[in-house]
Amino acid sequence: MKNIEKYIEIYKNDLLNNIIPFWTKNSVDKEFGGFMSCLDKDGTVIDTDKGLWQIGRFSWVYGTLYNNVEQRKDWLDLAKNGVEFLDKYGFDKDGRMFFVVDRKGNPIRKRRYVFSESFAAIAYAAYYKATSDESYAEKARKCFDIYFRYSTTAGLIPPKLTENRKTRGMGGPMIGIVTAQELRKNLNDDSYTKYIDNWLEEIQTYFINEEYKAVMETVGENGELIDHFDGRTLNPGHAIEGSWFVMQEAIYRNNDPKLIKLGTKMLDWMWEIGWDKEYGGMLYFRDVKGLPVQEYWHDMKFWWPHNETIIATLMAYELTGDKKYEEWHEKVHEWTFKHFPDREHGEWYGYLHRDGRISVPLKGNIWKGLFHIPRMYLMAWQICERINKK
Amino acid sequence: MKNIEKYIEIYKNDLLNNIIPFWTKNSVDKEFGGFMSCLDKDGTVIDTDKGLWQIGRFSWVYGTLYNNVEQRKDWLDLAKNGVEFLDKYGFDKDGRMFFVVDRKGNPIRKRRYVFSESFAAIAYAAYYKATSDESYAEKARKCFDIYFRYSTTAGLIPPKLTENRKTRGMGGPMIGIVTAQELRKNLNDDSYTKYIDNWLEEIQTYFINEEYKAVMETVGENGELIDHFDGRTLNPGHAIEGSWFVMQEAIYRNNDPKLIKLGTKMLDWMWEIGWDKEYGGMLYFRDVKGLPVQEYWHDMKFWWPHNETIIATLMAYELTGDKKYEEWHEKVHEWTFKHFPDREHGEWYGYLHRDGRISVPLKGNIWKGLFHIPRMYLMAWQICERINKK
Repeated sequence: MKNIEKYIEIYKNDLLNNIIPFWTKNSVDKEFGGFMSCLDKDGTVIDTDKGLWQIGRFSWVYGTLYNNVEQRKDWLDLAKNGVEFLDKYGFDKDGRMFFVVDRKGNPIRKRRYVFSESFAAIAYAAYYKATSDESYAEKARKCFDIYFRYSTTAGLIPPKLTENRKTRGMGGPMIGIVTAQELRKNLNDDSYTKYIDNWLEEIQTYFINEEYKAVMETVGENGELIDHFDGRTLNPGHAIEGSWFVMQEAIYRNNDPKLIKLGTKMLDWMWEIGWDKEYGGMLYFRDVKGLPVQEYWHDMKFWWPHNETIIATLMAYELTGDKKYEEWHEKVHEWTFKHFPDREHGEWYGYLHRDGRISVPLKGNIWKGLFHIPRMYLMAWQICERINKK
Repeated sequence: MKNIEKYIEIYKNDLLNNIIPFWTKNSVDKEFGGFMSCLDKDGTVIDTDKGLWQIGRFSWVYGTLYNNVEQRKDWLDLAKNGVEFLDKYGFDKDGRMFFVVDRKGNPIRKRRYVFSESFAAIAYAAYYKATSDESYAEKARKCFDIYFRYSTTAGLIPPKLTENRKTRGMGGPMIGIVTAQELRKNLNDDSYTKYIDNWLEEIQTYFINEEYKAVMETVGENGELIDHFDGRTLNPGHAIEGSWFVMQEAIYRNNDPKLIKLGTKMLDWMWEIGWDKEYGGMLYFRDVKGLPVQEYWHDMKFWWPHNETIIATLMAYELTGDKKYEEWHEKVHEWTFKHFPDREHGEWYGYLHRDGRISVPLKGNIWKGLFHIPRMYLMAWQICERINKK
């Protein structure tokens, strides 16, 4: 692969000397614990509310750095700063988690779905790996169990729509797979593989649409196309994120050819649909039939689809050696690094117009924190190292 | 006022020969009743689901044309096509209304809030005025009562946030005022004035922020600024819509000077905040402290804030004679008519980028139907006629 040493240097250096220091400096709440993710472009906190997704994700990132890069005490302390906040303020009496709490940890919002739980599960598992404290393995398992139960038991999460339109969402199995992968690895427990098998089966059966060559986001109960706005709306960055969860499973299973085929198919289809041939970059939403979508931010460029596409193209190249993926990686890397990083204050802008101009200048909010960007840097660095050694 | 005859001609002609024929041709469901509002730019139906907001609004528009422009049988039939669909498919067993039904009227989605009810109330009231059928006056009253009860009784609508952050929204009193104005007029019933008095009081007490010179959208229980993203986010087009509801009440009350002052103050403040000094047009969201907002479509130009600003500036000019409002009207009229109308297929695009380029090319969806645009044309035409006669 061309320029592999250059890529390793960029990914490693930017992770350790730009992204992590930016958040460590600006988001740690030394007074009340946890992290504040709502930051202006220069790092100033502009909203003190704390999203539980982000607390789990921040803690997972610091724990993962400790487990994979260097056993630095400050990283372990920061991982602890996350899990202890979750312990104290994350859970309602019914065992479910909140979605947002205020700076002091008072509950502000709870939602129907269970992604606070999935992110807490991976935070706890990484912290267990780092400390061998069994109580955190137990907490990880508990959160995973809630995630599994709520996302696979019909009716447990009150559906948005009536029974006249029963739907299945791609998010449930996708996040399930990566969460189970994390627990399997950090708890050293192969029993999580059976969950992954089921979720992989669900994706193949219901979300892979051969007719339209598309990974669907929302389908009918039996995988049928729901020919309305919501059913036709594709999210290429999301599906490409799913593609590397599948490829990651292929690697775990000694380069399982069926999973390589499934993962690269998902990437191929959604690159074709999502890559903006006019301006470059990944479009946010597309309609499976090429009709207008309802969501008006459809043609914006968000940071995270670019993170996921960089990981997926590198992983596909690692698994297949196909030059096409080397070219795609170069394309998406170039567009991403030309437009997203803030050369003045560090870190990345998150929300660009289609042509790459900045729309919202903030660095963090309830959705954007320390997660997709550092995960990309770390994984891209690791994949490039592996490719380089071959 | 300069060019008043030109404006009258544009508003009248475009309403009767462009907007109304476009929707009458493309959205009427002759097979199952009601209207389909999800249309591509050429009028093709691209989603057959029916939003109940839109069914009420379409019916109100046709009924209002019948009552105010000409007693055309086709308009009355179309108003009937709306109210009969509401009668048959709009209501759940508990008396509350649905949010979306499918083409045949099967319920698809119900929501917590009560705007389906407010739009049904004005549709029924306009239909009563057109037909003198008492049963429709009764239905209008019933829908209004549900709207009033749910939007003013704490806890009846399950709050999004916990009791750690009690909020008040501007939407409730605003839509309440205009709904009560419609019922008062079309049911010829002054008892609705007392509701308007209370909602005007609520707006003045809680949403008028003298310190920031802004009309707030969401405040704390006692009107205090909630210094988080949601509490700081302003919606200039929405507040300007509210400003003309207040000015309309001033006209009803023999040009009540206090209400003229309140309405024009709301317009003045929110024009200053919302008018885009760089590109022209009304910005969608602004932060009261000038910080970044969380919503990524903040700088787009939507159709309806422009409709509301055209009405508000004309009404302010009618009430005060202040040349400033004549100039503002000209500015917003020019920008609007330069960018929104589709000269090829008729009607308006709804979602533009900041600089006026089209983002989503559709003509209708679950949010955009036959409402803000024809209401603007009719009211602007009527106001200009009144100004011209002075």
